[in-house]
Amino acid sequence: MKQFTFFLVAVATMAGLVALIAPVPEHADEQPAPAFVTEIPQGYRDWKWISSAHEAGNLNSLGAVLGNDVAINAYRKGTLPFPDGTIIAALHYRNVPSEENNKVFGQAQSFVPGPPTNIQFMVKDSKKYAATGGWGFAHFADGKPGDATFMKSCFPCHEKTPASDLVFTHYAP
Amino acid sequence: MKQFTFFLVAVATMAGLVALIAPVPEHADEQPAPAFVTEIPQGYRDWKWISSAHEAGNLNSLGAVLGNDVAINAYRKGTLPFPDGTIIAALHYRNVPSEENNKVFGQAQSFVPGPPTNIQFMVKDSKKYAATGGWGFAHFADGKPGDATFMKSCFPCHEKTPASDLVFTHYAP
Repeated sequence: MKQFTFFLVAVATMAGLVALIAPVPEHADEQPAPAFVTEIPQGYRDWKWISSAHEAGNLNSLGAVLGNDVAINAYRKGTLPFPDGTIIAALHYRNVPSEENNKVFGQAQSFVPGPPTNIQFMVKDSKKYAATGGWGFAHFADGKPGDATFMKSCFPCHEKTPASDLVFTHYAP
Repeated sequence: MKQFTFFLVAVATMAGLVALIAPVPEHADEQPAPAFVTEIPQGYRDWKWISSAHEAGNLNSLGAVLGNDVAINAYRKGTLPFPDGTIIAALHYRNVPSEENNKVFGQAQSFVPGPPTNIQFMVKDSKKYAATGGWGFAHFADGKPGDATFMKSCFPCHEKTPASDLVFTHYAP
């Protein structure tokens, strides 16, 4: 066990040295490549409800936005910017008419979440995600993360809402 | 203290006797007047999210359905009928376009919860609410419960969904 620990320390030390002597990027003034969240945050389905959202048109989406405790506390207190540790989850579903509800109501009026389409997250870590306003973005469809091209489209859009720390969703009372 | 306890027992006993000797209703086969929930269940805004809902037309509503732990467990396990202690909350808001989101998206597509309209609850107590399928219904607008005439409209509609124990909302995964 001791030998194994020594081996790990040796590997870590060497990795550190390699990092120290790694060549400086050719364009030192370039922004670092943005980092994305690649794992689904645990337990998000148990988080508290922030608000609901309906996107018409091509998205045709109906869903909910949930937040972990850090997020909920910040929303309720109006804390801006959101503190590190905040995670906001957007659960999206196809917006579908509810045939069974409409039968009872006697008219076509009721829309409900149909098949899930994707889950998106915003994870606040002001150091790790400094290049994208302190937010790490995530998108999962069928449990798989969005590819780099898609993920690069998150920040330029969220960046347009600086007054709410890049967050679109308001807290529903 | 002992005297006070005795007093309480005495009052309770007398109340029991009064109940025993109370006159039988004129039409003994009549259903008892339905009971409604008249107090807002505590802590409902912290409950877990069951699903979202959009009602078009006159209602023009966007909201969420939340459940206490008994409700969430029953939904996740598919327990039917819902056990006593289940409380389901429907939080309704006016469905309004989000001007700020639409500006960012460059088109009118985004709808969000606007001003709150009402909160409705279904409280399962198979004895207390036996006359209405075991469910006590509640409706609050500006914190005030709905009047008897309005409240009488809940059960006849919910009664039409016996397969889901009178509950319209399905759990969104």
